[in-house]
Amino acid sequence: MNFTKQTVAIFITLALVLTGYEIVNAQEIVQDPEYYILKAQHGDDWAQQDNEINKKLKALKKKYGTTPNIIHIMWDDSPMGEVGFPFIQQLRGFSTPEINTMAAEGINFTRMYTEPSCTQSRAAALTGRHSVRTGLTQVGFPFEYGGLRDSEVTMAEVLTQAGYATAFFGKAHLGDIEESYMTNQGFDEANWNPYNQFPVIYGPQAEIGGGVLPTSTNPEIYPEDPYDIDKGWRTLGHVAALEGVKGGPVREVVVPGDIQGWYKNMEGQKDRTLAFIDKSVEAKKPFFIAYWPELIAFVPFPERKTLSGGFLQEGLVRFDPFIGKLKEHLKEKGIAENTLVILMADNGPMTHNGPPGMVETIYRGGKGDYLEGGIRVPAIAWWPGMIAPNQTVGDIIHETDLFTTFANIADAEKFIPTDRVIDGVDQTSLLLNGDTYSRRDYVHVYTGEVYAATVKGRFKRHWVGDLPGLSGASFYDLYNDPREVQPKMLPGFTTKGMFNAMRARHDLWNEKYPHSLEARGFPFTNIENARPETIKASKPRFEQKDVPFDVMEVMKRTKDLKEFEAEWGIDK
Amino acid sequence: MNFTKQTVAIFITLALVLTGYEIVNAQEIVQDPEYYILKAQHGDDWAQQDNEINKKLKALKKKYGTTPNIIHIMWDDSPMGEVGFPFIQQLRGFSTPEINTMAAEGINFTRMYTEPSCTQSRAAALTGRHSVRTGLTQVGFPFEYGGLRDSEVTMAEVLTQAGYATAFFGKAHLGDIEESYMTNQGFDEANWNPYNQFPVIYGPQAEIGGGVLPTSTNPEIYPEDPYDIDKGWRTLGHVAALEGVKGGPVREVVVPGDIQGWYKNMEGQKDRTLAFIDKSVEAKKPFFIAYWPELIAFVPFPERKTLSGGFLQEGLVRFDPFIGKLKEHLKEKGIAENTLVILMADNGPMTHNGPPGMVETIYRGGKGDYLEGGIRVPAIAWWPGMIAPNQTVGDIIHETDLFTTFANIADAEKFIPTDRVIDGVDQTSLLLNGDTYSRRDYVHVYTGEVYAATVKGRFKRHWVGDLPGLSGASFYDLYNDPREVQPKMLPGFTTKGMFNAMRARHDLWNEKYPHSLEARGFPFTNIENARPETIKASKPRFEQKDVPFDVMEVMKRTKDLKEFEAEWGIDK
Repeated sequence: MNFTKQTVAIFITLALVLTGYEIVNAQEIVQDPEYYILKAQHGDDWAQQDNEINKKLKALKKKYGTTPNIIHIMWDDSPMGEVGFPFIQQLRGFSTPEINTMAAEGINFTRMYTEPSCTQSRAAALTGRHSVRTGLTQVGFPFEYGGLRDSEVTMAEVLTQAGYATAFFGKAHLGDIEESYMTNQGFDEANWNPYNQFPVIYGPQAEIGGGVLPTSTNPEIYPEDPYDIDKGWRTLGHVAALEGVKGGPVREVVVPGDIQGWYKNMEGQKDRTLAFIDKSVEAKKPFFIAYWPELIAFVPFPERKTLSGGFLQEGLVRFDPFIGKLKEHLKEKGIAENTLVILMADNGPMTHNGPPGMVETIYRGGKGDYLEGGIRVPAIAWWPGMIAPNQTVGDIIHETDLFTTFANIADAEKFIPTDRVIDGVDQTSLLLNGDTYSRRDYVHVYTGEVYAATVKGRFKRHWVGDLPGLSGASFYDLYNDPREVQPKMLPGFTTKGMFNAMRARHDLWNEKYPHSLEARGFPFTNIENARPETIKASKPRFEQKDVPFDVMEVMKRTKDLKEFEAEWGIDK
Repeated sequence: MNFTKQTVAIFITLALVLTGYEIVNAQEIVQDPEYYILKAQHGDDWAQQDNEINKKLKALKKKYGTTPNIIHIMWDDSPMGEVGFPFIQQLRGFSTPEINTMAAEGINFTRMYTEPSCTQSRAAALTGRHSVRTGLTQVGFPFEYGGLRDSEVTMAEVLTQAGYATAFFGKAHLGDIEESYMTNQGFDEANWNPYNQFPVIYGPQAEIGGGVLPTSTNPEIYPEDPYDIDKGWRTLGHVAALEGVKGGPVREVVVPGDIQGWYKNMEGQKDRTLAFIDKSVEAKKPFFIAYWPELIAFVPFPERKTLSGGFLQEGLVRFDPFIGKLKEHLKEKGIAENTLVILMADNGPMTHNGPPGMVETIYRGGKGDYLEGGIRVPAIAWWPGMIAPNQTVGDIIHETDLFTTFANIADAEKFIPTDRVIDGVDQTSLLLNGDTYSRRDYVHVYTGEVYAATVKGRFKRHWVGDLPGLSGASFYDLYNDPREVQPKMLPGFTTKGMFNAMRARHDLWNEKYPHSLEARGFPFTNIENARPETIKASKPRFEQKDVPFDVMEVMKRTKDLKEFEAEWGIDK
């Protein structure tokens, strides 16, 4: 037999990883086992590419005086293809010319994967870790009694150590407890929503606007329910938007149900973004802005600007001019070529229980699904001079890669913690060299806490679903069956054992580096202008002395709703 | 009240049409009633546009000496978006650079509608009439005992009268009786398949190639079935491809099961197309070529040229270079600017019972369905100098419009029969003026003989399906719900009565201008080199004296399979 050096390296690595042998240097980032398989094959090439990349980045720093600025814009619930492609927009009756132009000036990703829902996706982007590792596996609603744990290291914390000014504007959806406030998670300043848009729309006016019945938040508009004997068990006093600076006080800026206030705050985030750029430039600091706008309030806009009228489409069209404005602003400030902008959605469309216009476009499934439709989103990378224009990239990239890639670009990799698994891999080479330069050919797909599917190149295996007694799980070929409707076992039979090995390695690593948990506690503490009902909500609803169980203990346990989440997340 | 002249015209027209009043000049083409509604509103604008168009066409004729040449290329079973859009091809693992370039140099249609299956679609394109009007409402298989009736007037017959040289190469699928031979339907020369690809693949080798079991065509490869007491009831002796010239003899050129022969004949059609161009140029005649290639034999190609490996994708990639060659050829001959090329598919992908890779891309449903996925196909128009490049057109166009449009461009409108409904409308203005210049906002959707759905602008109504007792049929908004999965009654309630009126007008016209029928008879007559089994098949299988029923009468009745077709055509 004629083994090449490379083949031998693969076998040795496989053997080592399968037996759990420790090949990770304690000082290095701990990646998913699958990454090491690829590194064993391509490590030399990667090192060469990195050499070239470092030269480019050094030259750029020399020219601009700082490491590159990073703006990460992420909105809600859009199917792959929703922006960047005039053809698809033509079919859907709307148009985002500025976003499409930005796409044409950079990279249009065809395989940007995310977690399947908001909270999960946002936690993953900010920590570089699958949400199952941080315990943020459910979509947060009032009262969540929880949020992102202090011990998680966010992108903002990593970049702050490298000298970046950091800001967060928009929807965080990462918890309602003080520990999870964006100003306590590394951002210098923040204006954010601790939940999603729902707290905003649920007021009596929502009933008029969207035909939504606010049964749980506004009992006062109904006759008193004589069977409702546990007064106050439904939440009151939750907050819709907060604002503050690192270490400083936090203020409530939008009261739930105040849609006009929400519109105003959302518009204000655009100005804040531009102002933060100006301030950072003035201070000669590189900046990182996570601008994750809530484009819609789930209530129709009074005036329609699209033929579709779909809620998100209306939101996108209204947001679109800002992208042109942002580009102009970066050019005026002379920093366009030193600024990486990423535009993307956080997960697939809300096809289950969603508003008008949230539909599948190409892939099957939507928000919450482990199907491609739930986790494959539109994504654009723009960095004039560094990223070449007119690129449609077929490589796999995962949102967690942004964490690692941003850190690399910012010369901040050394601040990434090395005591936990970081799922993100460095994709700077993909950004700068383009198609076929990804350092990932796999995605572990979780919905809730369920390990639901694995993607490896063109192949995908569903671990949940039909026929568990046959080959264990279904196999799909995404080129031939993008909608995952024709499970095929025989054409992919050589992938069965290999998928099993991937999962075994992943499981092994999960045992070695156990998942963390969502932090738990009472919500809304330390809000400067807290309303009386908010203060009430920040404390137990009844005295400990009146009940025999431990109030705090209960709160810690309410997270354990695996079954609900798994069912919700799995398409019929 | 303040009625404009236009409004009054609409009301008068509506009243007249609803009451069946005859407003059609006997010398003019009879269109669908819906057309007259639009003409009443836009007739003046249309006349003005036509003036300008006629000037352009005259100038072109003066320059080139003939009316424009027309090449209509139509292949099988492709979803909207399958060609012309590199982004979608990236997702599917294949690329057709030449076709995509042709698309970029002309019009990419987003709403080209066809009939939902092969025979139906081909009959409609060739006659400008919905297939229900010609009786060709089913996909033909051996023995069909029928085909396109002599009294139908084809595109070839219309253009011949205007001095065109006409040729047909590829899959006709319009019947097996002599009357329906392409050489008897107006084409000067033809090399055609009377059925689809299946007669080609069903041979013992298909079993090896595609895992297809040829149970009905090749009983000799199985042990003799002792229960099979009616020897010969399954067809033997059918033909796969014929060739001939107008009025001349016809020869069989591919024997069923001979895949190599089929490949060779298919390749030869490319050369014939170029040769026919040369011959016509030499003769100083304008030409019309219907080149409807069979891109695949439903057997895998031994060598894969796509990542997908999907059968049709492999076929498209192999066909693609010819499009570059064709363009070069037209340029070399100096006639590119006097030649209109249309590229399109005949219907949606064969998602029911189809080969690998035939899947939905954007729209739901496939071949046979009245859903958009069955009837909305990729389509490109190219005519350098006359059609501007880089156009994505959102207007509705129907394949029957090609009949009328080609006739208009060829100055042959006067040869279109005026004693029957022509569904096609003249879309020259859409070709030359682009987006928003369509003269059609409606599509009547038949599957088989069932009137299944109506499209009017963004709205669509399914006449079959659920809830017939509520509003009569479901309503869909195609911008918001492209996949037709969210039937909405209330948002579209003002369209209910209007859809009813559209259908009533259409029905009224159908009574006034009754449908024709498929011609019936014994197949394969007058084939010069007919094999003995083909000669046998061209006659009754048993003597009339041995059976009490009228053999010919039975044959005429076998067409009445409405129920089967309706069921087959409707998605679960």
